[in-house]
Amino acid sequence: MLSPGQGHVSTAGRMLDLLRTQGTLSRVELAERSGLTAGTITHAVRRLIEDGLVREVGRDQQQGRGQPRRLLELDAEAWYAVGIQVDRTTTTIVVLDFAGNRIAGASLRGSGGTGPERTIAALADHVADLLRSAAVGRDRVLGVGLVTHGPQDRERGVLLTAQPDPAWLEFPLTGRLSERLGTPVLLENDATAAAFGEQWAGAVPTATFGLVYMASGIGGGVIVDGEIYRGRASNTVEIGHVVLNGGSTECVCGNRGCAQAEAGPRAVVEQVLAEADLAERIGVRGAPEGTLTDFERIARAWRSGDREAGRLLERSATSIGRAAVTLVNLFDLDTVVLAGPAFLTAGTLYRRHVAAELEQSALSRALSRPEVLISTNVDTAAAIGGALHVLRTMPSGTQETGTGISPVPKEPHKGAS
Amino acid sequence: MLSPGQGHVSTAGRMLDLLRTQGTLSRVELAERSGLTAGTITHAVRRLIEDGLVREVGRDQQQGRGQPRRLLELDAEAWYAVGIQVDRTTTTIVVLDFAGNRIAGASLRGSGGTGPERTIAALADHVADLLRSAAVGRDRVLGVGLVTHGPQDRERGVLLTAQPDPAWLEFPLTGRLSERLGTPVLLENDATAAAFGEQWAGAVPTATFGLVYMASGIGGGVIVDGEIYRGRASNTVEIGHVVLNGGSTECVCGNRGCAQAEAGPRAVVEQVLAEADLAERIGVRGAPEGTLTDFERIARAWRSGDREAGRLLERSATSIGRAAVTLVNLFDLDTVVLAGPAFLTAGTLYRRHVAAELEQSALSRALSRPEVLISTNVDTAAAIGGALHVLRTMPSGTQETGTGISPVPKEPHKGAS
Repeated sequence: MLSPGQGHVSTAGRMLDLLRTQGTLSRVELAERSGLTAGTITHAVRRLIEDGLVREVGRDQQQGRGQPRRLLELDAEAWYAVGIQVDRTTTTIVVLDFAGNRIAGASLRGSGGTGPERTIAALADHVADLLRSAAVGRDRVLGVGLVTHGPQDRERGVLLTAQPDPAWLEFPLTGRLSERLGTPVLLENDATAAAFGEQWAGAVPTATFGLVYMASGIGGGVIVDGEIYRGRASNTVEIGHVVLNGGSTECVCGNRGCAQAEAGPRAVVEQVLAEADLAERIGVRGAPEGTLTDFERIARAWRSGDREAGRLLERSATSIGRAAVTLVNLFDLDTVVLAGPAFLTAGTLYRRHVAAELEQSALSRALSRPEVLISTNVDTAAAIGGALHVLRTMPSGTQETGTGISPVPKEPHKGAS
Repeated sequence: MLSPGQGHVSTAGRMLDLLRTQGTLSRVELAERSGLTAGTITHAVRRLIEDGLVREVGRDQQQGRGQPRRLLELDAEAWYAVGIQVDRTTTTIVVLDFAGNRIAGASLRGSGGTGPERTIAALADHVADLLRSAAVGRDRVLGVGLVTHGPQDRERGVLLTAQPDPAWLEFPLTGRLSERLGTPVLLENDATAAAFGEQWAGAVPTATFGLVYMASGIGGGVIVDGEIYRGRASNTVEIGHVVLNGGSTECVCGNRGCAQAEAGPRAVVEQVLAEADLAERIGVRGAPEGTLTDFERIARAWRSGDREAGRLLERSATSIGRAAVTLVNLFDLDTVVLAGPAFLTAGTLYRRHVAAELEQSALSRALSRPEVLISTNVDTAAAIGGALHVLRTMPSGTQETGTGISPVPKEPHKGAS
């Protein structure tokens, strides 16, 4: 049985995953790569062809002897999945086809300011528009991956935090969005989704890596041997709440000195606002829902040679680097990927300073040189990962899936106030 | 293929594991609990009986209808495994039978002061004595699990750190011990082994937990859904090197403010030594190889009502609690086990303060109340875990094992100087 809590993938799901990653494969190659028997593969492939998910596309001519092998590929138009990444200041929507190709996308204002009811209504409208303009029928949408910051209860589809404001706590996010769209909705953590997205893009040269996700807040994800680390309930790698030495700033979590409070985009914006000349010069305004926009202005000012902006960003990057040292020391990693919209312009600066901290302080620095990479899709990796999560865990949309995913949450709405 | 780097367990190994944990099981129960087919079970069990590892011990009379099922159990005397935990100040050796029962044990001085060559020679002598007095023939010993602090190269059987002194770095530990004993030797991390040991003892009420291991140094381990988290190369959960807010003490790792340097047993001993009256009163001497002995004296003084000793231990425990907050926030845990010889007497004090820090600061504190447990075998869990690692990854000693474990390391000795 699949469970959205675990993200385990069925036999059919594994076949589809391999074909999605590799393009075309023969049955023999599927058996080799999955470790499953030829009989299991034959049976699973027959079902997938009957369901219209996979098709034969010719023969492998490379074989020196024996019958040429028939090659299989996904039917890219069999199904579609939507990924939505909601943050306080930005919302990103992507539509992927069944082969994982991005066929449509949109970037919108975030959820800050408006409550969850209005945000969900607006999201549903935007998704409907996007599907219409991409000529994708609603009945061909396997599901929606809704990607937010944590902590979350993924089974029930609710946030377990009163961020950005108390109305979001326990609001039935996936249930309401599912009602409006008429498709199943899965909840996923932003950093986890970004790690999925990076893995899928093939941008990380190793099967084991950590990821720092920076939007308005800071999260993290870890992939080991190609599998996401889920912990107890997938609320993992809260790197934004690693306490920094010398930190004293109060954090939304109730503690003091957390990396996010000391060095996250909001902290950098506040530091700029504290220097009135600088704020004026680079146009930083400080509205809560405009944090990423302000942060991007600071990054562009640095890029244009503003030394003060650069100094503040470098201080932030060094702090994020210190938190990354704790990440790699606890999870035994040597590769860290920087993902999320905050790295759009400032990524190269952060990469340099995070790498310097790791090279200086990671326990394994003598064993293997730490590597820091910038995401190939800083601003869309999480939304893409959300859609991929749907494609991976809801493989066929038929009785085969057994996902236990229903369009309404298992438990009643407990009240958002 | 099994690999000591991964600790994957074969079909036979899974059968043996289930029987080791459950005592007796029928073939049907083995199939149910392992998820394997009846055919696979029948075949595997036949092999295990032929190899003398498993035997039939009667029939299950509980069944209402049908043939009563034949029950299987391990032949406890089929094989034995040795676990050795080496620390700077103590060495613990245990002998387990094939069913995981502890049949002999010894506690000795640690490795501090003497170099690796003499330490290994002494260990080999002690193991030989222990096996002789337990009447276990050398040819019945499946292997030795050698448990040390990290970082390690488990494949090559060497330490990757110059702790306690440079002679240990890259010294062929498992190769030399294997030559002397004539049995394979596997290297394992102390905290990881302790987590195995706790899991086996059934002392932890959840399949997902973190473990803080405190001997002379401080390490950690994480078990998720019954499986150890191994990361890239099993040098994980270095909780002793989480930097504490306000910390400034230089650490052996080259950084400043690490939990181990600020609050580990050596740090507490140094703090006592700085108060001459206190050191005199409770008999703390400060020899490097006597850290745990000194620490135990401080713990006993606290237990006898010494307020100054209590104050220093409480400060240490609060710091360890802060590092534990980072552990649970990154790995998404709600249960932390305290293991290792440093908790022998002071365990209850540490438990109270670590729990208080988690209840106050863990991000998930509102979702589920953090639980802190003291190991059921504070001073032997790691050695037991080392022996269990051998039993689990080297299931039969025949060609079936395919462990790739050889009595000499794969790479030549690179020189210890």
